[in-house]
Amino acid sequence: MNQEEIKYRPIGIIHTPFRDLRGVPIQPAFDQRNQGTIELKKEYLDGLKDLDGFSHILIIYHFHLSKGYRLHVVPFLDTVLRGLFATRAPKRPNPIGISLVKLIKIEGSIVHIEDIDVVDGTPLLDIKPYIRQFDEVEDYRSGWLSGKIGRGNQVKSDDRFK
Amino acid sequence: MNQEEIKYRPIGIIHTPFRDLRGVPIQPAFDQRNQGTIELKKEYLDGLKDLDGFSHILIIYHFHLSKGYRLHVVPFLDTVLRGLFATRAPKRPNPIGISLVKLIKIEGSIVHIEDIDVVDGTPLLDIKPYIRQFDEVEDYRSGWLSGKIGRGNQVKSDDRFK
Repeated sequence: MNQEEIKYRPIGIIHTPFRDLRGVPIQPAFDQRNQGTIELKKEYLDGLKDLDGFSHILIIYHFHLSKGYRLHVVPFLDTVLRGLFATRAPKRPNPIGISLVKLIKIEGSIVHIEDIDVVDGTPLLDIKPYIRQFDEVEDYRSGWLSGKIGRGNQVKSDDRFK
Repeated sequence: MNQEEIKYRPIGIIHTPFRDLRGVPIQPAFDQRNQGTIELKKEYLDGLKDLDGFSHILIIYHFHLSKGYRLHVVPFLDTVLRGLFATRAPKRPNPIGISLVKLIKIEGSIVHIEDIDVVDGTPLLDIKPYIRQFDEVEDYRSGWLSGKIGRGNQVKSDDRFK
């Protein structure tokens, strides 16, 4: 098995209204008024061409406030311990986050986004276009989340994953 | 801006029928018969608890065959250069890939999956449950891809992103 270390560098920074983990919406789908910006490093500016035709983008980022990991966590939407990989909790062996956000407009190397759910200053690793045919499923089951998802808009982040 | 290097380590390996980039389906949605397995490192086994309730998972991996990046690429579904971040091409500043795959069953640290579209031996970085309410959108636009997506099941990968 490949033990090799993989090295990435932020391609930019995500700016949001959230200075602290407390109060961050737990997923963008639950708080759709939050606007933010991606400040892409100038060297990558040309890569944004054609992106403005897409209504939504996937942003991939590093959970920079998350130290270490746990294999069992109590998710925000539950009250019992669940296997880490069955949750979106940040304390992961590789603390990589994904959010689906609305693309508002692009001005130079600044990408304006909506429905953002990360802490201000989060290092950005990648941007991908959201493509419905690749990113949606049929015959869907949601495991432990069944019946709990309706609570999502009442729940905010706290310090449990710091 | 944060220049800090981010270090990850594979949490497992993805095994697929594809020994070479040529012939790999360009996205799982286009070739739904391909089965594969994730071989998770034993130390992370406990994190798989509760995952079997989900019908689909997002796998996040390192494009280990992709060297360097280009800011403009001709995607498999197009004939003209597009901005890199408006595509899913592997030659990215941080070569991180995401695939949505069907979860078939879990046997110990082996996760059986379907609709897989990566080369055999791809290093796995993370597994997340697919959650429809977080991962689907309304009022959708697909930019340069509009009208081209129907070609996807005739198109296979080639060496252009090696």
